[in-house]
Amino acid sequence: MAEGGDLKVLGVWTSPYVIRVRVALNLKSLPYEYVEENLGSKSALLLASNPVHKTVPVLLHGGRPVNESQVILQYIDEVWAGTGAPSLLPADPHERAAARFWAAYVDDKIGAAWQGMLFMCTTEEERAAAVARAVAALETLEGAFEECSKGKAFFGGDAIGFVDVVLGGYLGWFRAVDKMIGRRLIDPARTPLLARWEERFRAAEAARGVVPDDADKMLEFLPTVLAWIDAFKSK
Amino acid sequence: MAEGGDLKVLGVWTSPYVIRVRVALNLKSLPYEYVEENLGSKSALLLASNPVHKTVPVLLHGGRPVNESQVILQYIDEVWAGTGAPSLLPADPHERAAARFWAAYVDDKIGAAWQGMLFMCTTEEERAAAVARAVAALETLEGAFEECSKGKAFFGGDAIGFVDVVLGGYLGWFRAVDKMIGRRLIDPARTPLLARWEERFRAAEAARGVVPDDADKMLEFLPTVLAWIDAFKSK
Repeated sequence: MAEGGDLKVLGVWTSPYVIRVRVALNLKSLPYEYVEENLGSKSALLLASNPVHKTVPVLLHGGRPVNESQVILQYIDEVWAGTGAPSLLPADPHERAAARFWAAYVDDKIGAAWQGMLFMCTTEEERAAAVARAVAALETLEGAFEECSKGKAFFGGDAIGFVDVVLGGYLGWFRAVDKMIGRRLIDPARTPLLARWEERFRAAEAARGVVPDDADKMLEFLPTVLAWIDAFKSK
Repeated sequence: MAEGGDLKVLGVWTSPYVIRVRVALNLKSLPYEYVEENLGSKSALLLASNPVHKTVPVLLHGGRPVNESQVILQYIDEVWAGTGAPSLLPADPHERAAARFWAAYVDDKIGAAWQGMLFMCTTEEERAAAVARAVAALETLEGAFEECSKGKAFFGGDAIGFVDVVLGGYLGWFRAVDKMIGRRLIDPARTPLLARWEERFRAAEAARGVVPDDADKMLEFLPTVLAWIDAFKSK
């Protein structure tokens, strides 16, 4: 086990952005304290640690905050480089650029569609349009998987890497959407590589207990998130 | 002069995202071929090099494309590390995280306000609201400058760094907006540190000839950009 020092994560258990940070810490075998936040009544520590965005995740390392999930992932990768833990980003600069490109694509396209499917839609037509955008983005990612994985198990190759944890964070909500719409977003017929990737990612030690697999529990939590969004909008 | 190999940039001269890449290449003393694109009639090379987003900038290095401006900046920093050229990102992981955080903030808040001020507004009220968002974000960045620069000339300290080139890319359009609204977005009274930073950034060798300073020329080009956006929307 790598030496973590004093690590704390402020999070919400359903957040894709929080989940990816927790999976990354697990991959590095870094022990950390996890603190569940209620975004309807944010802790003083959260407000002090992320005064600009006031949101999760926050990684506190020796008391010093790091914010923005993709920034946190790279921080973890850089601080605990060369400690024997696998790297999230590959060593080759061109492959690093490809991983950063696809991670940005995931948060841009999948992130927007995710919000559209669950939080921003007011009609079934709007939800269906967001589902279509998510499916189209996943089909593009099916091609990215071939490019990045080079026939191996993960976007990162033999081991879970940067794009894997970034995309993997959304899997919990994907399962909830699957239940709502009565079909799978990551459809084994249309995106077979991603479907097998999802199975491997969920089965990985680092993801277990962190990537939600209970669609009902996610859907029960949905009104809480919607109430947070409403409160934020009305400010 | 560092050895660049075969470097080519596909760009549009007014684009904040293109400008930052060119400034970074200049900082590293890397010679490159610059190819001006017409986004109303994209080159076959652009379409082949960035098939996902089909936009500029593209950096071609030995014929291999790298896309997304912040990804390109980090690629440049990593490939030409240790060649004597100054680093865009600092060495310390916590300072690197801060630079990445503020660069993301710039593209999130300033980028959205920039589009709102120039391209997405249909009324003067909408433009004024976007200007207010830009000014608020610049006030936050005034605080970030204090945090990152530690009293030195740039966000990157003594030398131009990651946040400098990311924010600096917008200065050309800022000057155009200043002319439209009859006051300065980077107001020396409200954001004195940024106002002095702008002067230093514009005067830097790496920025000269790349960061536009002629508001009239920018405003003459605005209808071209608006026509590209209209054509894109109607697809």
